Amino acid sequence: MKLESISFAHRFDSITGSAIREIFKLIAVPGMISFAGGNPSPAALPDEEAAEIAAEQLRSRGKQLLQYGATEGFPPFVESLKDYVTKAVGCEIPAVLPVTGSTQAMDLLCKALIDPGDAILVENPSFLGNLQCMRLYQAKLIPVDSDAEGLLPDALEEAMRTHHPKLLYVIPTFQNPTGRTLSAERRRRIAELANEYGVVVAEDDPYRDLRYDGEALPSIKSFDAEGWVCFLGSFSKIISPGLRVGFIAGDSSIIRKCTMGKQSTDVHTANLNQAIVDQFLRRNLLPEHIRTICAGYRAQRDAMLEELASFPEGTRFYRPDGGLFIWCELPAGLNALNMLQKAVQRSVAYVPGTHFYVDGGHDNTLRLNFSNSTIEQIHTGMAILREVIAEELGA
Amino acid sequence: MKLESISFAHRFDSITGSAIREIFKLIAVPGMISFAGGNPSPAALPDEEAAEIAAEQLRSRGKQLLQYGATEGFPPFVESLKDYVTKAVGCEIPAVLPVTGSTQAMDLLCKALIDPGDAILVENPSFLGNLQCMRLYQAKLIPVDSDAEGLLPDALEEAMRTHHPKLLYVIPTFQNPTGRTLSAERRRRIAELANEYGVVVAEDDPYRDLRYDGEALPSIKSFDAEGWVCFLGSFSKIISPGLRVGFIAGDSSIIRKCTMGKQSTDVHTANLNQAIVDQFLRRNLLPEHIRTICAGYRAQRDAMLEELASFPEGTRFYRPDGGLFIWCELPAGLNALNMLQKAVQRSVAYVPGTHFYVDGGHDNTLRLNFSNSTIEQIHTGMAILREVIAEELGA
Repeated sequence: MKLESISFAHRFDSITGSAIREIFKLIAVPGMISFAGGNPSPAALPDEEAAEIAAEQLRSRGKQLLQYGATEGFPPFVESLKDYVTKAVGCEIPAVLPVTGSTQAMDLLCKALIDPGDAILVENPSFLGNLQCMRLYQAKLIPVDSDAEGLLPDALEEAMRTHHPKLLYVIPTFQNPTGRTLSAERRRRIAELANEYGVVVAEDDPYRDLRYDGEALPSIKSFDAEGWVCFLGSFSKIISPGLRVGFIAGDSSIIRKCTMGKQSTDVHTANLNQAIVDQFLRRNLLPEHIRTICAGYRAQRDAMLEELASFPEGTRFYRPDGGLFIWCELPAGLNALNMLQKAVQRSVAYVPGTHFYVDGGHDNTLRLNFSNSTIEQIHTGMAILREVIAEELGA
Repeated sequence: MKLESISFAHRFDSITGSAIREIFKLIAVPGMISFAGGNPSPAALPDEEAAEIAAEQLRSRGKQLLQYGATEGFPPFVESLKDYVTKAVGCEIPAVLPVTGSTQAMDLLCKALIDPGDAILVENPSFLGNLQCMRLYQAKLIPVDSDAEGLLPDALEEAMRTHHPKLLYVIPTFQNPTGRTLSAERRRRIAELANEYGVVVAEDDPYRDLRYDGEALPSIKSFDAEGWVCFLGSFSKIISPGLRVGFIAGDSSIIRKCTMGKQSTDVHTANLNQAIVDQFLRRNLLPEHIRTICAGYRAQRDAMLEELASFPEGTRFYRPDGGLFIWCELPAGLNALNMLQKAVQRSVAYVPGTHFYVDGGHDNTLRLNFSNSTIEQIHTGMAILREVIAEELGA
């Protein structure tokens, strides 16, 4: 029988995503100024420290690191991670599970909770990687409206009442893609609503430490009375995405289900990778490292904002207090998807905003990343984008 | 609302597995002689080489390794892996995907193929970790009978005709838990049947290189005409399980679906871990390393076989040509599950065979691992087991 007759699982029926994969390949094209992706700056990747730590850890406890580990995590890391999470979240956390990046946290949470057809409430737009993850669990994605302070509580309550969702997925701080931060008052209200309606919240907070202005806000989790909120985090933005270390923290019963799911998914997160992050925590290397990263990213953000100020009239953009992204709306009538080809021909890439919306549309939006370009590249690339937009407007 | 009212996904309805997790906790109890688990010997874990390689790789290409990588794999490793797989499988392979251990290969293959209720044919007994993985995809597991040469072709064809399975899961070499090896003739026949009936084969071959007697056999994949066979492998048994590096190899259309699934599962396998295994391949460290490991494991296997020869009458065991396990049947009427408590009280652990059967039963069987105990521990532990069995027979 020819292999063409193979039938794949129905969970792939609604998955396309090839456009996105094509865009991400652009990042690697030599000479491309990429405002696509969410890559840290090469300067932010601590290669020397990692080399020293990896060698030291493998020499001092290599037999343990190279052996099978527990699904629950490498014990020293579980300990230091608990301290880290407690400080980040601002309250005691019953259980934490190290995972291979916060993408796996989302995958395991869906595995634990979602049957086909279950409703998940999402911000709109939201992180497309995790939207794809939820679609692979055949969830029904229900977009909830936001304003500049994030999710609208009335719209959220209405959606909880109408759709009986299993899960709410929210990125509270420097949201991907909009850069918006959920206000403290709304964080409290979201926790209350989740507790009232019995909805698990996936509070995905990977950009929390990348703050360039203002003060840190309390987590949604810190307002959680009964344990409905799970806090998802990652060391991808503050140490290294290539190491694939993140975590999910929350009530023991939910974390236990995620642990059972992980056992059948990849047995455990690699011990060496957990040990490297553990040493960053134990040696207290993060505060200084984060200060250095933030100083660089702040300057990159400001360079991009400066360029945007002189973009053609009708261009709107949101000034983020942190994170990696600036969200733009082009003058009405422009199409960021069509315009991408022209930008790429002149060696500038970005992600069209339509990909972040549950039902597409919003063709005049786009997401710009500033962390993975030098100040010079930002000035050059933004000048090219301005020209391309001006030409589109003139066409 | 109290968190007790949470409802988890139905995929967990048939999952128990807590007995197994309890057994694996025994391995870590100080003083326990563990014939449970499938851990490599500490002597087989190359900590010094890994320390040197990790430091060298992070110093020479650390920025690349710590950055996001492609879901398709770290390019140098994809290259060296293709060579490795081509040699192992004995034929050209259209596509390989590095994954975090062969457990993830199975998870992704199920994600690509299995809708709830789909039938999967499995050996009986088989590797319980992957049985659990398939159950989490709500597959209908159909056991197929074997004899000393592995799966019975007539039974397999009958099962394909009756159940229209999506997938056949088979461990052809030094099977877990039985230690049996599928004959060359049956490998050919399985490939033919898979091609005739349009069934994807997951040929899971992690023990292939751990051969102590006899000659390597051709892979099932090498007899595959149309691309229905996927070859799953791992570096867990020949380099390190703690690094979590394995692969799935096969036709491009299937590997592409697995890659899409992986993108939403954990984005990519950690680059550092792929680079370490890449260096083991490029520096050609494996042949000598495998020779050393095999010499040790052969002696450990022989010590265990020697002890088994003087076990009470009615004990049957299978002499494996390689791998990590010896499969035992106790005299009729004995119950390995009940006996485990008594053995553990005397500091010896094993896995009751019933856990490896799709529908349980077979209470007088057990699996013994010899790779993670010294020769001395094997003699001591087996003497204790012999006593416990003798007492059970006398009771």
